[in-house]
Amino acid sequence: MSATQAAPFHMVDLILKKRDGGSLTAREIGFIVKGAANESIPVEQLAAWLMASWLNGLSIEETRALAVAMRDSGEKFDPSRLGKVAVDKHSTGGVGDKTSFLVAPLAAACGLAVPMISGRALGHTGGTLDKLESIPGFRTALTLQEFEAVLQRCGAAIISQTSSVVPADRVLYALRDCTGTVEKPGLIAASILSKKLAAGLDALVLDVKTGSGSFLRKRADAEYLGALMVATAEAAGTKTVALLTDMGQPLGRTAGNWIEIAECVALMRGQAAEASSDLRELSLHLAGWMIHLGGKEETAEKGYKAAANALEDGSTLKVFSEMIAAQGGDISVLDDQKGFHKPGAGEPVDPHAGIEFHAKRGARVEKGQPFATLYATSTARLEEPIARIKKAIAFSEEPSADEIPLVSHIFTRENAEAFLRDTVR
Amino acid sequence: MSATQAAPFHMVDLILKKRDGGSLTAREIGFIVKGAANESIPVEQLAAWLMASWLNGLSIEETRALAVAMRDSGEKFDPSRLGKVAVDKHSTGGVGDKTSFLVAPLAAACGLAVPMISGRALGHTGGTLDKLESIPGFRTALTLQEFEAVLQRCGAAIISQTSSVVPADRVLYALRDCTGTVEKPGLIAASILSKKLAAGLDALVLDVKTGSGSFLRKRADAEYLGALMVATAEAAGTKTVALLTDMGQPLGRTAGNWIEIAECVALMRGQAAEASSDLRELSLHLAGWMIHLGGKEETAEKGYKAAANALEDGSTLKVFSEMIAAQGGDISVLDDQKGFHKPGAGEPVDPHAGIEFHAKRGARVEKGQPFATLYATSTARLEEPIARIKKAIAFSEEPSADEIPLVSHIFTRENAEAFLRDTVR
Repeated sequence: MSATQAAPFHMVDLILKKRDGGSLTAREIGFIVKGAANESIPVEQLAAWLMASWLNGLSIEETRALAVAMRDSGEKFDPSRLGKVAVDKHSTGGVGDKTSFLVAPLAAACGLAVPMISGRALGHTGGTLDKLESIPGFRTALTLQEFEAVLQRCGAAIISQTSSVVPADRVLYALRDCTGTVEKPGLIAASILSKKLAAGLDALVLDVKTGSGSFLRKRADAEYLGALMVATAEAAGTKTVALLTDMGQPLGRTAGNWIEIAECVALMRGQAAEASSDLRELSLHLAGWMIHLGGKEETAEKGYKAAANALEDGSTLKVFSEMIAAQGGDISVLDDQKGFHKPGAGEPVDPHAGIEFHAKRGARVEKGQPFATLYATSTARLEEPIARIKKAIAFSEEPSADEIPLVSHIFTRENAEAFLRDTVR
Repeated sequence: MSATQAAPFHMVDLILKKRDGGSLTAREIGFIVKGAANESIPVEQLAAWLMASWLNGLSIEETRALAVAMRDSGEKFDPSRLGKVAVDKHSTGGVGDKTSFLVAPLAAACGLAVPMISGRALGHTGGTLDKLESIPGFRTALTLQEFEAVLQRCGAAIISQTSSVVPADRVLYALRDCTGTVEKPGLIAASILSKKLAAGLDALVLDVKTGSGSFLRKRADAEYLGALMVATAEAAGTKTVALLTDMGQPLGRTAGNWIEIAECVALMRGQAAEASSDLRELSLHLAGWMIHLGGKEETAEKGYKAAANALEDGSTLKVFSEMIAAQGGDISVLDDQKGFHKPGAGEPVDPHAGIEFHAKRGARVEKGQPFATLYATSTARLEEPIARIKKAIAFSEEPSADEIPLVSHIFTRENAEAFLRDTVR
């Protein structure tokens, strides 16, 4: 009838191919992703493909094709005008996970650009954006032009995914959420990486958490996802490593929104409490790898030392304060934490509610010694969390036997590919 | 907020249960079917559940619950006012399958009511309704009130599924069609039976076809579907048998729309050609079982004989003619077949196009002897079908060795349940 191009595939044929155990080609996956973004493929067909992919699994090639097609489904950030190497970190998330607020200014202080496009809260763990928005005035919804301006000025910027970036992922993520197709390594990896790849990164460091406080409780699942993301991102042209890290207890000494920002600021000021030492350690490891992959140091160990110096000499706090100010945040609250930190009546989530731990796993505590402080708008609201915390913590007369390492494994391109070759999944 | 009742289940939980290999309860399936019919469950969630059901399979209990819930999703026909036992036949379909036009008047002629609610064409085989509509004036879209009136007058009526009958099946069938979830025994059985059960049948005879002209080419698939439908319908309270029948060649001597009606009329007139003998035989077998299950004869064999008598004494043709007339059809064309049968310019499907076979499988033919006649609106339209037919037929110097039985197996409740117990699927 008109000059419109005929569709190169019938969606039902691609569903059948996936249903019957086949692997879709990059062109076929590109067709699906384009159809998801422009709504030319009905949601019921996308849902059927997602469930078939969930049950039959995605091959590594399909995962890569899906990540790349989603990356290309919308606007992309081009960091080349910044004149710096662009690096970022992504964490699969966990309780008290606040390393973003440290690694972004750490890497920026060491001469890299950190264009961080972040997501909202996932399940029981708070989101990076929610935490930042507890700072009065802080804006996360910047345009890519504003993003670039903040990066030019400060070296780091943390924004929310705009509507024009990876639109296909937003459509597919919403569908996965309501169709029971969320927790599959290939789909998770493609979703995470599409957003990171759309930021035009030269290098990416992944923090894959495992343990009771993470969404990947089984170590084997975390290992597979870590290796898959490294292999996928490397195949898409980004230097990538994944650190498998412990989430068997909250990271650092706080969990909440504002209270986590305050902990990071204390660390950047050199006022770290003993209970923040794991947060400090992990942040320096992650930043060390970012600095190494970004070409600033020969090894990750040297990167770690450079990051530690940047933390101690105050340059990290300077970058962080500049970034907060550049994104509209009121930096005076960083200087008056006690005065600012008053749990208020904010609904549905009080940005000032939270928990502060005074002792970490394995620590010796005396009877009568407080091990945690809870913050809430009213004492009535504390009853349930107090009961839950009492249940979650075990006391013992014997000292705890085994030290669980904070970073238990590192996947690089080479060992990730070898791991995937040997893993039937 | 209001007095609306909270949903008893979250659809995503039911999807997860099915995805992870569980079996849904009758209440859970009832919730899904109701949500499909009243559109309270989004199509993407229904599609995900269908794909999970396709890949993980439905248990017999789930199949029964699905059939019953779909039956109950809309208006039902109540044949009790007819004062007769209500029986029907359903065929999984095949080339030249036209037994409905014979078994409905055969069973009615033997004192039963045959309230046949039929479907449209499926794939390459013509639908019962399309064939009937080649008779000028014949109406298939009757209300259930009109349906009852025709049944009162003639004992048999054949109508299309109305919009008020099994609405859930219409929603789910459309979804299955576009999401690659059609050909799964549990879903097929539930869909077929929901429509048959909504007609309030006392007994049902299933004709499950296997072979190259059917949609179940593998015998094991046909066996499983036959046994599953018998067990499911019996569990829902309808006496049911399934005959496994050969579809390795077209049934009877014609395939088309009007041409198939004409073949049946010739049979009812006692003017059957030799090439119609398999059609006659199968129709008498099916009608024999209907007559037996309907309580008119002690055995299916006696039912067969009663049907044969009804065919020969003209009472079957009488019922058929009355039914055609009662549904608005012009019965004069039955008497002037040659005059009426002129392939016309009807689009997209010419009701008068078709093929007539003069020889069946294994028959001896001489060189130069026509083995088929094709009818079409123009000779240009014959080129492709002639080439296809030449390719489909094999000639041999040797007589064909093995006689393939027309009815190879009969599933009753007892052996169907035993078969399913022993079949891992």
